[in-house]
Amino acid sequence: MIRDQRSQGRHAILAEIRKAGAIARVDLAQRTGLSQATVTAITAELMAAGLIEESPALVAAGDGRRGRPRVGLQLRGAAHLVAGAKVADRTISAAIVDFAGKLLGEATRPLPGKGLEAEALAAELTVATAAAASAAGCSMADISGLGVALAGIVDAGAGIARWSPALATRDTPFRAVMEAAAGLPCFIDNDANLVAMAELYFGEGKGIEDFLVVTVESGVGLGIVLGGRVYRGTRGSGAEFGHMKVQIDGALCRCGQRGCLEAYIADYALLREAALRPGYRAGDPQEDMAALLAQARAGEPMAASIVARAERIFAMGLANLVNIFDPQLIILSGELAQHDYLYDAKVIAMVAGQTVQAGTPPPEIVVHRWDDLMWARGAAAYAIEGLAARALDSLGEDAA
Amino acid sequence: MIRDQRSQGRHAILAEIRKAGAIARVDLAQRTGLSQATVTAITAELMAAGLIEESPALVAAGDGRRGRPRVGLQLRGAAHLVAGAKVADRTISAAIVDFAGKLLGEATRPLPGKGLEAEALAAELTVATAAAASAAGCSMADISGLGVALAGIVDAGAGIARWSPALATRDTPFRAVMEAAAGLPCFIDNDANLVAMAELYFGEGKGIEDFLVVTVESGVGLGIVLGGRVYRGTRGSGAEFGHMKVQIDGALCRCGQRGCLEAYIADYALLREAALRPGYRAGDPQEDMAALLAQARAGEPMAASIVARAERIFAMGLANLVNIFDPQLIILSGELAQHDYLYDAKVIAMVAGQTVQAGTPPPEIVVHRWDDLMWARGAAAYAIEGLAARALDSLGEDAA
Repeated sequence: MIRDQRSQGRHAILAEIRKAGAIARVDLAQRTGLSQATVTAITAELMAAGLIEESPALVAAGDGRRGRPRVGLQLRGAAHLVAGAKVADRTISAAIVDFAGKLLGEATRPLPGKGLEAEALAAELTVATAAAASAAGCSMADISGLGVALAGIVDAGAGIARWSPALATRDTPFRAVMEAAAGLPCFIDNDANLVAMAELYFGEGKGIEDFLVVTVESGVGLGIVLGGRVYRGTRGSGAEFGHMKVQIDGALCRCGQRGCLEAYIADYALLREAALRPGYRAGDPQEDMAALLAQARAGEPMAASIVARAERIFAMGLANLVNIFDPQLIILSGELAQHDYLYDAKVIAMVAGQTVQAGTPPPEIVVHRWDDLMWARGAAAYAIEGLAARALDSLGEDAA
Repeated sequence: MIRDQRSQGRHAILAEIRKAGAIARVDLAQRTGLSQATVTAITAELMAAGLIEESPALVAAGDGRRGRPRVGLQLRGAAHLVAGAKVADRTISAAIVDFAGKLLGEATRPLPGKGLEAEALAAELTVATAAAASAAGCSMADISGLGVALAGIVDAGAGIARWSPALATRDTPFRAVMEAAAGLPCFIDNDANLVAMAELYFGEGKGIEDFLVVTVESGVGLGIVLGGRVYRGTRGSGAEFGHMKVQIDGALCRCGQRGCLEAYIADYALLREAALRPGYRAGDPQEDMAALLAQARAGEPMAASIVARAERIFAMGLANLVNIFDPQLIILSGELAQHDYLYDAKVIAMVAGQTVQAGTPPPEIVVHRWDDLMWARGAAAYAIEGLAARALDSLGEDAA
């Protein structure tokens, strides 16, 4: 969408305020390239619309030459209550935040199964969101919008889940189904994109222009932030790091293709090798994985070999990201409990041996442990973006 | 660098004029989000500085509602003569273009060898540039700047060639050496970035926001265009598609690591397999490659197997780019004569079988054949960008 100049200015100013937390008008002019007069006019408009407010404390101006503290502007938390929800393997986590991203309440509910019909999943999400609202001391009627993080291939712009393990059908218009169930404006996206958004707004990526977020759960996700924005590709099917081919005609992947990264490092990939061992009996996958990792640590040769290959292939995959993107930072992000072994210093060290030697230090790789609640906060951040865009667009055409 | 608002406006307007060729002021306002008054002021300034001019013919305004033809603005070709040069395996190609990118003259000179000392390579580049200037009916003294495309890892911002097959030393401050030799402002970059720039300004990428350019010569290059700009990564070592690992502990690459894409599809990779055949004698590599490909076409089983593997690995690499970037378009670009077999329809068909199925058509893959001269034009486009940025910055601080 081509926006007129006033609308562009509003979006730029709101984005800078969100990035900064609290920022003086003079710095808004500096960072957006808008004139002081335009910044004054637009911020007045945003205050009148209730989207921003003056911060209670003065802020230092960003430019060192002007040391005098200034009145800061910040998002007005009370502008909206917003919900975010993450659909994980066995649970739904939901969070309620205010418009400034402050966490007000949360809830986690068991998910009855994978591959649900859209209406059934939307109903579960609505229940979890209502539980989080209750924990935050409010009701669904107080919530302005809901962001939902789904694993799989999501066309965020069109609101269509092309494919998700959480849904029974392909090409599901899940945003519309969700809006009908929750009675709210809804926003859906791939969960790795939303964890990238959470890192950008609340986490290790704050203030960094180009970074990658890699998540390992039952699948492997990648979020790409370039120029301070989540890069989503053309069809919503980008950043499919888990299906990067690491071996021609390699191991069979759940996606039906061969040689995908996931087919070497996902739990199911390790367990299908573990099943070869004499006397092995498949039980609960999480318990089986825990047992396999314990055996590997104890030096049992087959278990150790299974885990070692996964580590080496994961390092190779990370090295390929460095070779392609040359990012400032890679964040290994997520709950990670089950996949700790992949985040070991020796794996990180293996990455360097497979990256192009540029004569400068390789990008920093940091491990950021968090739980599903942070994914839900990322989903809420996406809903805040979506609601803010609608609010700004409703302010109408160029008033300049 | 944070530029002030007036400077940002100048850069935005000049970039839009360059993209459009000729464009009406009203459309400049629309595309940049600047006010009509600002566009009028800045374009007057750029005309006074001699960088742009009114186009001889009226242009249709881009917005359908306003059908009346308008006065178009275009880059003023006479503002500068600019040179670009591409260092290939055995030759240097140089081109002279005007500030609007119009080709005025060209020259190709043999390169005495690979891995030259910086001063020797700079001297050869100067000779080739002077020959191109002579062909364009001018002299070195008339040239305002020179862009140089080098294979390898180039930190364009710092002007340092981290590593290039054309140079004997690593971490060479080649921009400074080149400026001393040519007596001109010089700009250096990785050749794949500059072929991406050529596609963006003159080729198949014109008007496309997100696309990738893949080049196969003796190495494999990747140029990344996102949001209409060449993405260069943090350290200048991004887009190293040729060193994406396609096999753990795989074939040895010239870079010293194992399993790189290049180690399976570069000429040397095919020839070292060809050398296994009974009675094989190594000769001139280009002739040997031609013979190998002819034998493969004739159905000789070992030759056919060698070529088939290269095709399959190349398709796997392209599929990985689609899986990661989900671009609008991939351009297979370059001279290609020797590597025709990689651009075959059956290779393109293999890509689809290894990309994540999004339920929407995969990105278009087009083949764009051109010669070293087009690389030189891309290098010249980079010099034009660099010279324009200097000219704009010299216009001084915010005059608004």
